Amino acid sequence: MSKLKFLALGGMGRVTQNLYLYQYEQEILLIDCGIGFPDIYMPGVDALIPDISYLLNQIEAGAKIVGMILSHGHDDHIGALPFLLPNLPDFPIYASPLTAQFAHDRLLDKKVDKNIQVLGDRQNFSLGQYFKFQFIAVTHSVPDSKHILLETPVGKIYHGSDFKLDKNPVDGHLTDMEFIEQIGRQGDLLMACLDCLRVERDVWTPSESTVGPALLREMQNVEGKILVTLMSSHLHRIQQTITACQELGRKVVFVGRSVEQNVKTATQSKSLTIPKGLLIDKKKIKQIPDEKLCIIIAGSQGQEGSSLVRAVYGDHQIVQISNRDKVIFSADVIPGNEIPYYSAIDQLAADEVDVVYPEIRPNIHRSGHASRVEQELMLKLLKPKFVMPIGGADRHRSLFKKTVAKPLSYQDWQILLPKSGEVLEIDRQRVSVAQQVSLSAKTVDGLGIGDVGPIVLSDRLNLSKAGIIVLLLPRFKKKIDYSKMQVISRGFVFMKEADEVVNYIKKETVKIAQDLGKNVKDEELKRRLEKRLARRLFKVIRREPMILPVIWDIER
Amino acid sequence: MSKLKFLALGGMGRVTQNLYLYQYEQEILLIDCGIGFPDIYMPGVDALIPDISYLLNQIEAGAKIVGMILSHGHDDHIGALPFLLPNLPDFPIYASPLTAQFAHDRLLDKKVDKNIQVLGDRQNFSLGQYFKFQFIAVTHSVPDSKHILLETPVGKIYHGSDFKLDKNPVDGHLTDMEFIEQIGRQGDLLMACLDCLRVERDVWTPSESTVGPALLREMQNVEGKILVTLMSSHLHRIQQTITACQELGRKVVFVGRSVEQNVKTATQSKSLTIPKGLLIDKKKIKQIPDEKLCIIIAGSQGQEGSSLVRAVYGDHQIVQISNRDKVIFSADVIPGNEIPYYSAIDQLAADEVDVVYPEIRPNIHRSGHASRVEQELMLKLLKPKFVMPIGGADRHRSLFKKTVAKPLSYQDWQILLPKSGEVLEIDRQRVSVAQQVSLSAKTVDGLGIGDVGPIVLSDRLNLSKAGIIVLLLPRFKKKIDYSKMQVISRGFVFMKEADEVVNYIKKETVKIAQDLGKNVKDEELKRRLEKRLARRLFKVIRREPMILPVIWDIER
Repeated sequence: MSKLKFLALGGMGRVTQNLYLYQYEQEILLIDCGIGFPDIYMPGVDALIPDISYLLNQIEAGAKIVGMILSHGHDDHIGALPFLLPNLPDFPIYASPLTAQFAHDRLLDKKVDKNIQVLGDRQNFSLGQYFKFQFIAVTHSVPDSKHILLETPVGKIYHGSDFKLDKNPVDGHLTDMEFIEQIGRQGDLLMACLDCLRVERDVWTPSESTVGPALLREMQNVEGKILVTLMSSHLHRIQQTITACQELGRKVVFVGRSVEQNVKTATQSKSLTIPKGLLIDKKKIKQIPDEKLCIIIAGSQGQEGSSLVRAVYGDHQIVQISNRDKVIFSADVIPGNEIPYYSAIDQLAADEVDVVYPEIRPNIHRSGHASRVEQELMLKLLKPKFVMPIGGADRHRSLFKKTVAKPLSYQDWQILLPKSGEVLEIDRQRVSVAQQVSLSAKTVDGLGIGDVGPIVLSDRLNLSKAGIIVLLLPRFKKKIDYSKMQVISRGFVFMKEADEVVNYIKKETVKIAQDLGKNVKDEELKRRLEKRLARRLFKVIRREPMILPVIWDIER
Repeated sequence: MSKLKFLALGGMGRVTQNLYLYQYEQEILLIDCGIGFPDIYMPGVDALIPDISYLLNQIEAGAKIVGMILSHGHDDHIGALPFLLPNLPDFPIYASPLTAQFAHDRLLDKKVDKNIQVLGDRQNFSLGQYFKFQFIAVTHSVPDSKHILLETPVGKIYHGSDFKLDKNPVDGHLTDMEFIEQIGRQGDLLMACLDCLRVERDVWTPSESTVGPALLREMQNVEGKILVTLMSSHLHRIQQTITACQELGRKVVFVGRSVEQNVKTATQSKSLTIPKGLLIDKKKIKQIPDEKLCIIIAGSQGQEGSSLVRAVYGDHQIVQISNRDKVIFSADVIPGNEIPYYSAIDQLAADEVDVVYPEIRPNIHRSGHASRVEQELMLKLLKPKFVMPIGGADRHRSLFKKTVAKPLSYQDWQILLPKSGEVLEIDRQRVSVAQQVSLSAKTVDGLGIGDVGPIVLSDRLNLSKAGIIVLLLPRFKKKIDYSKMQVISRGFVFMKEADEVVNYIKKETVKIAQDLGKNVKDEELKRRLEKRLARRLFKVIRREPMILPVIWDIER
């Protein structure tokens, strides 16, 4: 019998870029299709998309994608659809109703046309010859989130994407524990992949429904406007804010592209209920007295250019914040965003605006991820032969092994921690690494996809540290005239005050050129100038600007 | 009677760049002289130093610095000494023994010669005609930290820099509560400045001495080497690590320039005691079996190029980490450092190295700052007429007002939250804003001080986002020959694959130039090219590279 192949195309040990490949013989099943978020080492990059070259190779070799299943509507699980679908043959995509709707929005944004099929829970569905799957309801920070039970020729696999075990979810849709228990009771689960992101915490993640009353308390006795900022897809949080507004007699206005779009979609698909008369169009904001107004606004990470940040810095056309207002950050900071996030809070505090955030009011935000104890419970119930932590960084995966799987008597060979790019082969008895592929995520920068590679990024980082010096070397009749050399720079020193440095550079350039002699080739001259000038400048000023010598042939 | 002037030269609402000016008539007293740390918006910058132009103006106008007092040995309180002293007239500097030693090291690093006078606690000392001061022992994350009681003609001022109220400090030197109580009992304290950094936490900060036993527990039953990384000036933490090593029979090696230097200084000044035979020179590291070795290593923030990070990525000459070793991060992440800090931890986890950090083991690090409850106790004891939170960001200052000062019945006019650059005038009755000065911190970049200003920084940020395009426009006999134009770029797109973009740029350049006509001036042409090309490129590719047109007159 053949083995089942498994690969995380977005890389293992990453929280984002979720895209999982399951392959049996020539049939490929994909789960999720998410983007990644660039860090400080990728300036200018808007997003990262998983590397699908392995997938394309398999197709080239005759394999066929029999379907893609989307687990939930977050961008790190659906955001890469518009970038990747155009490069792939057609195949059916399946999702829960709201996830399908969100995915549809993402596709529409980029003018990609694709129908997504909606499936209910516990509905067994066949894909190709070898795969069956069904959705299992779970709770998470976006409604309509699902886990996926796969049936494959080698056995059943539980693909447990992002979840928490919320005992009292806002929409009443509990995690389908009955079904999960049943899987475990059958005792034949081969493998479970489980969201391990929040394994560092060992207290059951509080229910989302505890946030509503906390928000209500924060919203009482505010003289001016209330601004609530949150993740724009967090519809349960939005729903609870709306409920609080209704209780307090405040009208609700949505501001910010992502919030407005998601609310529109969610209202249409009945994932969000806004009582009649409560909603105000943002253009009519001035007609409502401040004390009767609550603005739900995008920008909860302090993102540059977001509606909230523009409002904070007095740069928003519609929303002005005064010191009678209160701003509620109903969102944790995502690691890497600390500087803009706290800058926004500090600016509000400096302007004497009442501002609260989870660090001082833990109950105005609760995570959407399962803590260690919930992960443990899931593993206890499912009793798979193999377990693989997913959706976390390497430190989370390692901790899952130590604090979740090991205490439940899983042996090393049963706990799967594949490295990024490792293709696993799974059968009923064992899991082995069949192949190591190299994965390099493609960058999305503006309208360009993949044209900003490692060299361009490394140039950008170098440029940011010490700027650039362009050395213009004119050559007349095969002879460079160094007396006519020009030095231009940006980001190095303030050039109007830098005569001394410029003269130094010119002088050193001449010296280096003289050392090299007349017969030196262009490429060699440029390379030497780059290196030697860099070294000399570093000695003199301890900076390493990029040096760009340009030889310019002028024949007249 | 004259009033006392007060200004934070490093800016209010900043945690770092501590440099406070107190002026009475023509006499100026300075407290601390610290650097600031650049954030992601200041690429390439090594440090920030406070803007002393106000101070220089005062001196110009006849004022005299009667002395500088250093509160403790952290770089954000002493690190700017070598940069600022050379630009100021001579004046005496006072510090506790260890602080003086650390300050001396900083000065020596930059070859600045200056003697620092050592003073004991509770020793009344006169500065000039108007000021007296004495040191008050406090606990903090570096030994020998002090608060300062100033006597000025308008009244007594308690300058309470960084502190915690450690009930069981490692070196037994408790905060001098008796003296602090006595100040309060006298009932004549005019103003207290108090470290508010940790006001968000409302549980008494645990004693540093609780960390030692926790470290010992972590260090037990480790097969291989142990690496402990920590703040290099945290001598009490180092002392406790040494004690644990002694107990476990492990030799100690210090690795990393800052750790090695500080340990040397602290050993000489008896702030650190290393039992005989315990210390091993790092060159002899190979002679000690792994299970008998503990390396105390610099790089607890995951700083690029630090000893720890080089070791983590297999790039350190002496320290190699294997999966039998254990790495202990005995330091919290400082906001802004999350990416490198967690990357180092993730890399270790991926390499199957046992790694622990405060998020999963809270007791292997404890803060050196007072929580809200300790701040409250200080204020209760001191009973000043005016109180000013210092050493925190704006959100901390605002929270101090709300949760510390207000509940103790301080009125708005008694709680001082000056904005950055506000010069306060203080007398026995009231505090008012006398003047607003503009403060712009100077940058240290390599060997250059202050030559990287806002324009250069903004250029660097722009360069990092989309790179640079240099347009070379040759002019022969007063006519630009667009057919000979050259386009060079870095950090924009990978140029070898970018013929299309280059041709587009050339074509658009010609069009723009034609639109402008022949009589356009050079500056105008360049400005228009920059703007219009930027706009057109943004439309086509949604990127905004810096555009640098260069007109080059060639007369031959």
